[in-house]
Amino acid sequence: MSGRRFRRRLPIRFADVDHARVLYFPRALHILHTVMEDFFDEALGIGYRALFDDRKLGFPTVHIDVDYRAPLQFGDTVVVELSVAEIGNSKVVFGYQVWRDDTLACEATQVTVAIDPEAWTKQPIPDDIRAALEAYRR
Amino acid sequence: MSGRRFRRRLPIRFADVDHARVLYFPRALHILHTVMEDFFDEALGIGYRALFDDRKLGFPTVHIDVDYRAPLQFGDTVVVELSVAEIGNSKVVFGYQVWRDDTLACEATQVTVAIDPEAWTKQPIPDDIRAALEAYRR
Amino acid sequence: MSGRRFRRRLPIRFADVDHARVLYFPRALHILHTVMEDFFDEALGIGYRALFDDRKLGFPTVHIDVDYRAPLQFGDTVVVELSVAEIGNSKVVFGYQVWRDDTLACEATQVTVAIDPEAWTKQPIPDDIRAALEAYRR
Amino acid sequence: MSGRRFRRRLPIRFADVDHARVLYFPRALHILHTVMEDFFDEALGIGYRALFDDRKLGFPTVHIDVDYRAPLQFGDTVVVELSVAEIGNSKVVFGYQVWRDDTLACEATQVTVAIDPEAWTKQPIPDDIRAALEAYRR
Repeated sequence: MSGRRFRRRLPIRFADVDHARVLYFPRALHILHTVMEDFFDEALGIGYRALFDDRKLGFPTVHIDVDYRAPLQFGDTVVVELSVAEIGNSKVVFGYQVWRDDTLACEATQVTVAIDPEAWTKQPIPDDIRAALEAYRR
Repeated sequence: MSGRRFRRRLPIRFADVDHARVLYFPRALHILHTVMEDFFDEALGIGYRALFDDRKLGFPTVHIDVDYRAPLQFGDTVVVELSVAEIGNSKVVFGYQVWRDDTLACEATQVTVAIDPEAWTKQPIPDDIRAALEAYRR
Repeated sequence: MSGRRFRRRLPIRFADVDHARVLYFPRALHILHTVMEDFFDEALGIGYRALFDDRKLGFPTVHIDVDYRAPLQFGDTVVVELSVAEIGNSKVVFGYQVWRDDTLACEATQVTVAIDPEAWTKQPIPDDIRAALEAYRR
Repeated sequence: MSGRRFRRRLPIRFADVDHARVLYFPRALHILHTVMEDFFDEALGIGYRALFDDRKLGFPTVHIDVDYRAPLQFGDTVVVELSVAEIGNSKVVFGYQVWRDDTLACEATQVTVAIDPEAWTKQPIPDDIRAALEAYRR
């Protein structure tokens, strides 16, 4: 219950925006997923690819809700903070906050479920992954 | 209060999927937005581009929540149903259901707010747009 | 050598553009690929998914060159014309033209090679596919 | 004529691949553009956003050709090398090589033209930008 957060600094890209010249809202979720990939690589110490292919464990998203509080533009630099809100038997809930300086631009809650990606059936979260996730629990 | 729904039939594309070979969840939201664009064009009778550029009205997304109930794969054909859940002074809430045959694969609620895209300030929904939206109210 | 062309009418989407408010050049290639997918489905009579999964035949792109002649904007409607420029033993070269009314906005040549997607090895183009491709040869 | 190259190390993402589980070829071009954005920021010392909005200078792509030599997969790490192949009055030709270890996976030549993004008219390349580009000339 350390309350540690995983942080990533990222630029909003030339093509992340739409005709309104602000971050296209589906692309915000793509940005969050890239941070989740980096979190598995670095904080959990296992690449999401290795987890998926070798240990046969995927974490598809079954629910997401997102608040877009402030528009982001090309050239903005944001800090994405990932934390773990809840860990169940198979379920992991991630929380994200996207900051531009002191402005909370976007906030999201993502519910994922551990599955065997071949059978697409629920799996219990293995102990080593659970322990690593716990370190980032809010 | 006709309960009419706007429907669009769409293929899941070769590159809509990810390494898990199922629809990448942020791209589901992109698909929903393309249906919203078509809804403005056809059901409301005004292109989203004309609305934005000429009438200075945009509908950015301030909140979305999405349930992903069944994985979709490349080659699947889906029917997206859009309806209007709520119309406020500036707020429009859209509901979406994504069906693959009789399977409800994905369901979303999207809260948008009418704004002047130059000033990025809330605007009341004009009467003609309001009337057209009402026809698709659940 | 009928010179037939496969045509698709498509809108440029809200999020197809970038900060310059013109079609982001990589997304032009995505649009071309969606037309290629439709071409397999409709003109060749076999879905690209079925071809890939059941007949174990993929057509990865090994080379592309593209001329961007006129900027495209959100709200433009384009007609994409696909033709077959060359058919070798394993190689198929597709040509694309993207028209906005009488303006040739974009032109591309795409070299693909028939492969077994599991072994990722070159395959001869099967006779039925070859015959169907021939009908669209320039 | 230093022959310096601008290098960026990047992961291939979970959703950069397609149903064939290899990098979707249009997304390779997106990756190259993100490296071009970083090049402007860091090597030229001016953010592409500031160049575009404040100095009214954009570099749209008028031609690209790409060779895809080896498939890239989710989890691969690549090094992208950018160099300047040619500098004309308005034209800048960039060259890119994408390496996975010692394998040249992708190679591209991109022709851009300096324009005023409001008038969309050709502009001479300003001296400071020209000098900065020269340092990366092959």
